[in-house]
Amino acid sequence: MNIKLNTTPHRRYNILTGEWILVSPHRTKRPWQGKTEENKTEEKTAYDASCYLCPGNNRASGDTNPNYTEPYTFRNDFSSLLPDSPEIDFNEGLLKAESERGICKVVCFSPDHSLTLPLMEVEDITRVVKMWKKEFAELGGLDGINYVQIFENKGAIMGCSNPHPHGQIWSQSSIPTEILKKSQKFKEYWDEHITSLLGAYLEQELKTGERILDENEHFVSLVPYWAVWPFEAMIIPKRHIRHIGELTESEEIAYAEIIKKLTIKYDNLFETSFPYSSGIHQSPTDGKEYPEWHFHMSFYPPLLRSATVKKFMVGYEMFAGPQRDITAEEAANRLNELSEIHYSKQ
Amino acid sequence: MNIKLNTTPHRRYNILTGEWILVSPHRTKRPWQGKTEENKTEEKTAYDASCYLCPGNNRASGDTNPNYTEPYTFRNDFSSLLPDSPEIDFNEGLLKAESERGICKVVCFSPDHSLTLPLMEVEDITRVVKMWKKEFAELGGLDGINYVQIFENKGAIMGCSNPHPHGQIWSQSSIPTEILKKSQKFKEYWDEHITSLLGAYLEQELKTGERILDENEHFVSLVPYWAVWPFEAMIIPKRHIRHIGELTESEEIAYAEIIKKLTIKYDNLFETSFPYSSGIHQSPTDGKEYPEWHFHMSFYPPLLRSATVKKFMVGYEMFAGPQRDITAEEAANRLNELSEIHYSKQ
Ligand SMILES: O=P(O)(O)O[C@H]1O[C@H](CO)[C@@H](O)[C@H](O)[C@H]1O
Ligand SMILES: O=P(O)(O)O[C@H]1O[C@H](CO)[C@@H](O)[C@H](O)[C@H]1O
Repeated sequence: MNIKLNTTPHRRYNILTGEWILVSPHRTKRPWQGKTEENKTEEKTAYDASCYLCPGNNRASGDTNPNYTEPYTFRNDFSSLLPDSPEIDFNEGLLKAESERGICKVVCFSPDHSLTLPLMEVEDITRVVKMWKKEFAELGGLDGINYVQIFENKGAIMGCSNPHPHGQIWSQSSIPTEILKKSQKFKEYWDEHITSLLGAYLEQELKTGERILDENEHFVSLVPYWAVWPFEAMIIPKRHIRHIGELTESEEIAYAEIIKKLTIKYDNLFETSFPYSSGIHQSPTDGKEYPEWHFHMSFYPPLLRSATVKKFMVGYEMFAGPQRDITAEEAANRLNELSEIHYSKQ
Repeated sequence: MNIKLNTTPHRRYNILTGEWILVSPHRTKRPWQGKTEENKTEEKTAYDASCYLCPGNNRASGDTNPNYTEPYTFRNDFSSLLPDSPEIDFNEGLLKAESERGICKVVCFSPDHSLTLPLMEVEDITRVVKMWKKEFAELGGLDGINYVQIFENKGAIMGCSNPHPHGQIWSQSSIPTEILKKSQKFKEYWDEHITSLLGAYLEQELKTGERILDENEHFVSLVPYWAVWPFEAMIIPKRHIRHIGELTESEEIAYAEIIKKLTIKYDNLFETSFPYSSGIHQSPTDGKEYPEWHFHMSFYPPLLRSATVKKFMVGYEMFAGPQRDITAEEAANRLNELSEIHYSKQ
């Protein structure tokens, strides 16, 4: 790579959103007197009587969870979106509002309260993948659901309110901002080249290998060239598929495998249960074809220097644009040096 | 206002960025078992020997601060941007990077370590405004500086690494993403109406008063209709000025007054030193005219329910788009009910 990018402030272009990010590789040398996070390793038991996600327990809604043994999903008791909101079409001068309808679900990854994705067996993660696929088909198949956002907030620092391994699905009638940006970029490239933008990018990344973290028969994980979060990573299927519904059985397993390996590396980096938000970006479910869309999953972890010092996306980042302190290449190197065996099992 | 917006999930349009935000007013009822922040009220003294921003003290760079008595500014010892970065123009397939040059400065608001803006006198805040104005003129006047971002990160929770009252200025060669978005919207409106988009919005807001927080001869503060952060607010000059350089003397004072009143309300809300990131958005300094631009300042505070529970912008927000739990109108009402006298002085 261009050697100057290692040491010189510069900006990089995100081909999927059309936005730039500022990279200041010389800046990690600065001392840190700011906020540090707690890093208590709580001993978690396989069953917690006070957890509203554990099998057999009561939830806030009054419902009781079944004694589930595989991934279990239910409507979020405090859904942000509701399927039957009254119609709103408010347009008064410069004030504009619209109704938004949707369904929010919670997906418990495992009945075992003490686990997280990196600690789960590949076959159990494969069950989670199958559950995402099923939910995507069901929710996306509903009238008026035009996008299905699958995500996980892991760790208290990421606003996760319960350590039981779980993710969420918010599905809704409008197509969210981040998806619109990517749709446009996929489409522009498709119209010109009749091939997937992300597929072409993946091919280029595999040639140099500089930012590649892992590769198996069907998937690649890498630190994207335009990464914003310190150890941001992306999982991309080699085959150009538009959404999770198109995964074959062997792809489901390969996907579970690469998730496990990436999240083990994450935990090993600072020998902590590594916090992140992860999310799947895929084609909308509004009935159009979207041949240009290429399914992928991203991980946005906030930690930067240690288990207790994170990167703050604040003043400059909020008002101007994203800024990062280490290069994507350095982040990839650091992750690649780590063991593939979880630190708690070494 | 449309009564349904009080109780129904909906989305609102941000006229300045062209993006939507999801509002879920029914959702604040949900219980919170997640992360809570520390709320220690540290006794701060007017001078702190270990603070690298206090007058007469040494900084990390080895420099010594003068015994300043008014706002004091210096080059950031750990600048994210440097004025003399080597030229980069990297374009290889789908990887694209460019050099970014700039100057980062720190602005100490007061020599008194124990103060914050709400606790400062109006005439001392006016001095800060004058300093911002001077820096804007100087930095913006330099060849190759095309945007000047003035901002403050207040509170450890906002990544602020030193409690001494201070803000920052990052000035740079390219025009940041957030400014490009707003430039476009200002321009579209200007081309059609030959008037300021924000001026027209302000007029409409003043008619209903629903989201107005404060008004003086020259400025208005309000919760914007499309607010993202729970108690987000905006300060807008009544006169259509493009940048801080155009403030008259009496506008400088009125601006200082409205900043003081807003930040007192903030502190009073949860009887804590209220954290936020604030920033000024104004016209670029690339030599073009920008008659459409309308100077304004925004405050993005993370606290939602109390001094210790914040709003997390995580999974859904990162992957789909912003979401908030209370309406802009409710936020404005809550702030309007509070005393104008700082709680520590009541
Ligand atoms: O420059 P500081 O105060 O050390 O750093 C703070 O503000 C910067 C600008 O918003 C951010 O990039 C940092 O993440 C934050 O910790
Ligand atoms: O739904 P939860 O886990 O209670 O809430 C968490 O995830 C949501 C979706 O990203 C966010 O809106 C909340 O701020 C966060 O605390």
